[in-house]
Amino acid sequence: MASGAPLAIAMGDPAGVGPEIIAKSWVVRTLRSLPPFAMVGDAGAVARVWSGPVEEIGNIADAHAVFDRALPVLPSGLSAEVVPGVADVAGARAALNALECAIDLARSGAARALVTGPVSKAQLYGIGFNQPGQTEFVAERCGVAPDDAVMMLAGPSLRVVPLTAHVALAAVPSLLSVDLLVTKARTTAAALRRDFGIAAPRLAFAGVNPHAGESGAIGREEIDILEPAIAQLRAEGIDATGPFAADTLFHARARKHYDAAMCCYHDQALVPIKTLHFDEGVNMTLGLPIVRTSPDHGTAFNLAGGDRAHPGAMIAAIAMAGQAADRRARA
Amino acid sequence: MASGAPLAIAMGDPAGVGPEIIAKSWVVRTLRSLPPFAMVGDAGAVARVWSGPVEEIGNIADAHAVFDRALPVLPSGLSAEVVPGVADVAGARAALNALECAIDLARSGAARALVTGPVSKAQLYGIGFNQPGQTEFVAERCGVAPDDAVMMLAGPSLRVVPLTAHVALAAVPSLLSVDLLVTKARTTAAALRRDFGIAAPRLAFAGVNPHAGESGAIGREEIDILEPAIAQLRAEGIDATGPFAADTLFHARARKHYDAAMCCYHDQALVPIKTLHFDEGVNMTLGLPIVRTSPDHGTAFNLAGGDRAHPGAMIAAIAMAGQAADRRARA
Repeated sequence: MASGAPLAIAMGDPAGVGPEIIAKSWVVRTLRSLPPFAMVGDAGAVARVWSGPVEEIGNIADAHAVFDRALPVLPSGLSAEVVPGVADVAGARAALNALECAIDLARSGAARALVTGPVSKAQLYGIGFNQPGQTEFVAERCGVAPDDAVMMLAGPSLRVVPLTAHVALAAVPSLLSVDLLVTKARTTAAALRRDFGIAAPRLAFAGVNPHAGESGAIGREEIDILEPAIAQLRAEGIDATGPFAADTLFHARARKHYDAAMCCYHDQALVPIKTLHFDEGVNMTLGLPIVRTSPDHGTAFNLAGGDRAHPGAMIAAIAMAGQAADRRARA
Repeated sequence: MASGAPLAIAMGDPAGVGPEIIAKSWVVRTLRSLPPFAMVGDAGAVARVWSGPVEEIGNIADAHAVFDRALPVLPSGLSAEVVPGVADVAGARAALNALECAIDLARSGAARALVTGPVSKAQLYGIGFNQPGQTEFVAERCGVAPDDAVMMLAGPSLRVVPLTAHVALAAVPSLLSVDLLVTKARTTAAALRRDFGIAAPRLAFAGVNPHAGESGAIGREEIDILEPAIAQLRAEGIDATGPFAADTLFHARARKHYDAAMCCYHDQALVPIKTLHFDEGVNMTLGLPIVRTSPDHGTAFNLAGGDRAHPGAMIAAIAMAGQAADRRARA
């Protein structure tokens, strides 16, 4: 199944749960049929929270030889003497360094895909990081405009795309446009074909207003923005449907009717995915030249260092990245 | 267990799924330990979609004697020759008539509680109905101001209160106020004590903005409205907490920490409850002198007449109404 270069996993903030969940993912590598990977970062960050075998490697290609017996760690050159659970700027610098190194490995092809551990945006802002999040940072390093990179959250029974994200709810209606929806839907459909092997992806749009606006009675965005965007996408041959009332779009039977739900704002997408798949949600960036996934949770500093972090989302992120990379390799 | 007067169930639109799910609820009356009830409306509406035993009664008190052997139906005086699945104004008139009759039975005490079948607002508007929904109509008939009646949706593992409801998303921020939140939270806490037997109800508020605004970085409603409202409630001795990021408020572990989630807008409340409990969600109106519940779904005209309607939500609505009435009777 898995073949070719290993995956590169950026460790994330060394004081967060990243190193622990990467190590715990390595533990279940056979059980979960995970593809070979190396953690990119600082071996000390793992050793502080995990007593299993760790081996430093000098080249990511060496991960193959090590993977059976130990967690391969490719040093990114910057370590930080952090205390698990205690965020500081030294940790943020090490996390950013590991991220940059892992991106470069994926861009060069030395790594088949990029998986990123959770970082602390608050700490990164303290060292001059000026992107809204890792998604935008990775996109920029790949030469992709922010609007052409699409955030998708995926769990075992649901994929969602937030069409707007980290903005105040009051700003959402003014940020929605036919262009935005069409652009993001095209990227989503292309990624579902290329990375998930879905020949004719079905995209279901959620309305922004209750009951999808009730034909304009409670809001006009469905008529003015969503319907024209859906019509344009359908004219292009993309199986876009809706707008649907958001509250009836996410129960088990409804989810069978689409491959991704296109949601107008952050919580419309994130509430259902985290309600259903809190411990196994994957954040995937669509529209990049590389495959990039991450667990859909934060640094969880409050859990770090206590052997209490759930590796489910990291395991799912590694598996999804490996499968997407395999599909790209076969295409 | 159940004692006293029967429950009155308004049939809802006779062309919708109301009559069928009421009949199917009667079928499982023993299995599900449902309290005695009578359908208020038109026996013909049941006979058209169900071949089980139906008996007309002249007084709701007679439901007790009939309940073991047949579905008791108390005629409300207005029948309609509807075709299942085909909405028309005659059906709407019959539905409204049954609703008014059932409300009066509950207000007089002849019925212990009111359960309402689904109605078609579109058809009701055609006959001059001028309330946003049944909730407001019932409140007005009970002499309760609309703002003092609170809609709560409840399923086996989650209760949610939408603080605003059928308004455009763009209007939500301007409709939120400290007064509104405090008033609705007081009513909710009182109802959880009186109708659910929860001595010290825990109310968790969801923020309106992503990540609950990140300390004001993406929206100020949390700081300007939610936090002062929560502080005021706590000063009154109500266990109000938050505002919390909505996306991490509804997964299984999070739900253990509160008795009701107070949500800023329709879909923030309805998406999680319908995602989790699509076939068993109950809509309960809090703050009324009577107990009133309804299944949390619509007329489903597309399913009517085909023996395909799921009675789960109606069964849950009857059970919840009976339990609440029992608690009030014991108080």
